[in-house]
Amino acid sequence: MFLLGAIVKILDAVNNPQDLKKLSKEELSLLAKEIREEIVNTISVNGGHLAPSLGVVELTVAMHYVFDSPRDKIIWDVGHQSYAHKILTGRKNKFKTIRTHNGLSGFPRRSESEHDAFGVGHSSTSISAALGFATARDIKNEDYKVVAVIGDGSMTGGLAFEGLQNAGHLKKNMLVILNDNEMFISQKVGAVAGYLAKLLTVGMARKVEEKVMKTVSRFHGFGSPFRKFIKRAKVILFPGMLFEEMGFTYIGPVQGHDINNLTVILENIKDMEGPVLLHVITKKGKGYIPAETEPIKFHGVGKFDVKTGEIVKTNEVTYTKVFSDTLIKLAHSDKKIVAITAAMPEGTGLDKFAKEFPNRYFDVGIAEEHAITFAAAMAADGMKPVCAIYSTFMQRAIDNIIHDVALQNLPVTFALDRAGLVGEDGGTHHGAFDLSYLNYIPNLIIMSPADENELQHMLKTALNSNKPCAIRYPRGAGVGGKLDKSPCVLKIGKGTVVKEGDDICFLAIGSHVNTCLKAAQLLEKENINASVINMRFLKPLDVDIIKEALSKTKKFVTVEENSLIGGFGESVKNVLFGTGAEVECIGLPDKFIEHGNVKVLRKKYGLTPEGVANKALKMFADGKK
Amino acid sequence: MFLLGAIVKILDAVNNPQDLKKLSKEELSLLAKEIREEIVNTISVNGGHLAPSLGVVELTVAMHYVFDSPRDKIIWDVGHQSYAHKILTGRKNKFKTIRTHNGLSGFPRRSESEHDAFGVGHSSTSISAALGFATARDIKNEDYKVVAVIGDGSMTGGLAFEGLQNAGHLKKNMLVILNDNEMFISQKVGAVAGYLAKLLTVGMARKVEEKVMKTVSRFHGFGSPFRKFIKRAKVILFPGMLFEEMGFTYIGPVQGHDINNLTVILENIKDMEGPVLLHVITKKGKGYIPAETEPIKFHGVGKFDVKTGEIVKTNEVTYTKVFSDTLIKLAHSDKKIVAITAAMPEGTGLDKFAKEFPNRYFDVGIAEEHAITFAAAMAADGMKPVCAIYSTFMQRAIDNIIHDVALQNLPVTFALDRAGLVGEDGGTHHGAFDLSYLNYIPNLIIMSPADENELQHMLKTALNSNKPCAIRYPRGAGVGGKLDKSPCVLKIGKGTVVKEGDDICFLAIGSHVNTCLKAAQLLEKENINASVINMRFLKPLDVDIIKEALSKTKKFVTVEENSLIGGFGESVKNVLFGTGAEVECIGLPDKFIEHGNVKVLRKKYGLTPEGVANKALKMFADGKK
Repeated sequence: MFLLGAIVKILDAVNNPQDLKKLSKEELSLLAKEIREEIVNTISVNGGHLAPSLGVVELTVAMHYVFDSPRDKIIWDVGHQSYAHKILTGRKNKFKTIRTHNGLSGFPRRSESEHDAFGVGHSSTSISAALGFATARDIKNEDYKVVAVIGDGSMTGGLAFEGLQNAGHLKKNMLVILNDNEMFISQKVGAVAGYLAKLLTVGMARKVEEKVMKTVSRFHGFGSPFRKFIKRAKVILFPGMLFEEMGFTYIGPVQGHDINNLTVILENIKDMEGPVLLHVITKKGKGYIPAETEPIKFHGVGKFDVKTGEIVKTNEVTYTKVFSDTLIKLAHSDKKIVAITAAMPEGTGLDKFAKEFPNRYFDVGIAEEHAITFAAAMAADGMKPVCAIYSTFMQRAIDNIIHDVALQNLPVTFALDRAGLVGEDGGTHHGAFDLSYLNYIPNLIIMSPADENELQHMLKTALNSNKPCAIRYPRGAGVGGKLDKSPCVLKIGKGTVVKEGDDICFLAIGSHVNTCLKAAQLLEKENINASVINMRFLKPLDVDIIKEALSKTKKFVTVEENSLIGGFGESVKNVLFGTGAEVECIGLPDKFIEHGNVKVLRKKYGLTPEGVANKALKMFADGKK
Repeated sequence: MFLLGAIVKILDAVNNPQDLKKLSKEELSLLAKEIREEIVNTISVNGGHLAPSLGVVELTVAMHYVFDSPRDKIIWDVGHQSYAHKILTGRKNKFKTIRTHNGLSGFPRRSESEHDAFGVGHSSTSISAALGFATARDIKNEDYKVVAVIGDGSMTGGLAFEGLQNAGHLKKNMLVILNDNEMFISQKVGAVAGYLAKLLTVGMARKVEEKVMKTVSRFHGFGSPFRKFIKRAKVILFPGMLFEEMGFTYIGPVQGHDINNLTVILENIKDMEGPVLLHVITKKGKGYIPAETEPIKFHGVGKFDVKTGEIVKTNEVTYTKVFSDTLIKLAHSDKKIVAITAAMPEGTGLDKFAKEFPNRYFDVGIAEEHAITFAAAMAADGMKPVCAIYSTFMQRAIDNIIHDVALQNLPVTFALDRAGLVGEDGGTHHGAFDLSYLNYIPNLIIMSPADENELQHMLKTALNSNKPCAIRYPRGAGVGGKLDKSPCVLKIGKGTVVKEGDDICFLAIGSHVNTCLKAAQLLEKENINASVINMRFLKPLDVDIIKEALSKTKKFVTVEENSLIGGFGESVKNVLFGTGAEVECIGLPDKFIEHGNVKVLRKKYGLTPEGVANKALKMFADGKK
């Protein structure tokens, strides 16, 4: 199905958007097919955001046919749907390297191409960014076009609303394409989803307009039993009113896989005055049956077999799974436990909780800020909310953690999945900062498990603490050890010595306790006897255990998968300041970490047994044992 | 006008909401008048948010008359309008202490009263919080009512939208009272403001409904010249559709100063099913003529004369003024400079910039996240945006700083006003964390001026750097020194020795350089010769100047008005680690700092010349000179 034929491909002659404009409309459709093949074949090997990118192939071709990038600015929301855009804008030959170390990024990057007007990775930024370009353009008296492409999911974020609201006010000429792949409609998340679903029926319903009109004018009124009917009527009569009221001209919905139709519509509207919202209906995974059938499975996907759609599975037990299983276990005996996700039920493992406890599970959409404030109020009313949000996305809700949870000392548990390096998604997605952005928040308990077994204990500890708690744990598999039968409560603020030794002390937090144990083994060959301490808590930090270690050795290495600024290593140094101890800190340097396989990155940044052992050896080389 | 008479007051008999319910409707109106007097008289002495609180006196009385607090939950957005609520809920006798150290807080606080269901200070949290209470209630099978009161300004925040969107989806029974004081309408901020303005005309326009109907059905269609007319018609026919489409039942607009009418409406709607939005029109400053006339001036106000409305003025030159004047000066010669505020034109001093450069000035509403992403895109398109946002409110936009500005290394300048202690507004408003929440962000330059003169140089330096820069400076007056005629460019990452000395070294960032100079003077009496270094930059930190100081003394004191965790002191310690230096850090402790006069707080936390000198003396007492 997706094997390359010997025939000449249209894509061979298309290196940039200018080449595209020479093609006939029929050739555009064929080109879309070829691009789809290219995406499926590459992502089946490299992994990536397959379904979102397949859904917008025709839209991307049509946009580059009608608009004039890089003069015109095309701004992708989230950016995981930009693969066709990359192929069409000079990166066709590098596409095979996508998401590999030193290869193309899986997201738009200004540093990668002048066609990537605005870099992205997180959700709901595109309308604000488009407005920024349109505003700068007008100040400079230039006249290019600005187009934002935003999914229905991203539209649930408050930032998107802020952008709409400001754009509607400033009345700049700009186009927002709402790429409605009914993702959120199928998941029934949020009122906007319901609203968009209603809009979809409009096309069919327009003809009854006049008839409805008369009915409405007769029965319109507060409290009328015709309320529901009227609501529907309003949508039929005035489609897109939600956007119209925000100052946008609404156009749609239109089918998003008919290139000819799309190019005609885009041509027609590209010179319209003021902000315009074009509502395009697409299908996630379009053109590749397995992805069409299971769009969530193929949203972000690893290696898979192109012919069968079978995903290469591993039997690894992930931190996410242990978190999910433990939470369900604890929720059975504690009715106060509720779980909140910001549009990531599968990624956070809360999908299982949702099935078990549908009334205590909340998917709030891509709305991390609301998730936390909502949780804070539930905690104020006696619940024990657990907010499972990726480390990088929690950056959105820091004020809510500070202002709504910590200041009121409310027992909300933050489960920060994907803390540390996440790999191929790169700089926008690494959980590189959470220890730093949480550490200074008063009242907050911050912990990180050494392995998946400790994760279950930490979750129980947090839910037992009656305090705000954050637990950060990495993406992917744990160490594979046995899980204790029941989660138990750990002593808050206390670490544990996992290996004794007098020559040097490794202080680790999180999964790198295991790295340190292996490093200690390596050092044994050099006749160096290292102790390893699993600190468990960044806050409160176990000062006693550090001081006790100091009575045995003056050499310390701290290991964390977080920025070295404001995190674990600096906190340890603060304790050891002025004691004569030598401390080396291993962690992420003060830069945005590139994308690439996690193993490659860990090696590069010294977060391996060899890296830790070498750092230790240097300390011995510098001084004496 | 507001002097107390000898007559018996109704308020004397009202200690809690239960007492209120015994009053007649006429007495309720008189009570509102008395409460207003109490507020005006107290705030004229203590300072505070006068206009917002005066605007909702009748609404507050009506709510406590109809609802049953604390069983029913009343949640105030921002909370600066809660003075009447405080007076009516057991805090009448303490009201005179409001905003003073150890007195009542100027905002709702759970720790202060069971009637304060949810603490607050920042904007747009109330809908999320109300939904949290309503959801917890339903899980627990309880049946109390939940009411959020949110202003039209707060409604512009993305968090409010996220709350609306989730509430409309979950369909919980809850009431959102939109307190529309036309603040944002008059300032013409955001599309929602325009929308609300249109709604206000609805009451008068309902009668023409039928007629309009016919017209609409005839001319409805894309591109029609009747577009504007139709837009208006839609609002007349279907008022509140923006909210209705979000799943709310819209009721309004209703007049907000008629207690009798308000109690009837609240009684009527309090048992309605699903989320309800009641649109109430109030007047900021209502009942006190000077505040009615100048609601912005009396929004947050210091001491004033009740009779004349004259505000006690100081002739101090504030940091805000120097920032404002310098920005205007620089913008005259650099057309790329644009300025952005999130609904704080007066507070940030950008109101003057707005007058000078209306086309390069943007008030985006209470939308800090959008402000930064919008700025990032303008920077990407060649502008030099300056975002002036209070330190505490910038907590909302940390992800935007990381993901949209720093990661792309875009030249956006963050002017963080109100950094450090802000005084009477307290824990939600202190700028206690910015050095910590910025320090770990790669690519970012972070600086803080020693005085208002240095602020102008730093602004010029930032705008000249072509890099993302943050400048943090305090609320209120500078040291009062002379300003250099022109701002000049400082060397990035370089501090300066402001006083030589060999016995001890004071390292300060920001306005406490001056505190250290005074401390050094105090120490001279003890024959201790202290050096003082103005570090200027937290990042890049001037490692050389610290090491040079180390060649003269081993004793160091760092001073910053920020949390001691993750800020300036820890960064200095990191440099001095293992050098044998003794370092004491002065800054804010790891807790939420209470409200109170800044002088009182600075004294309490050792941020005074005496505090710094004493810390130094202890170091000499502990060791030897």
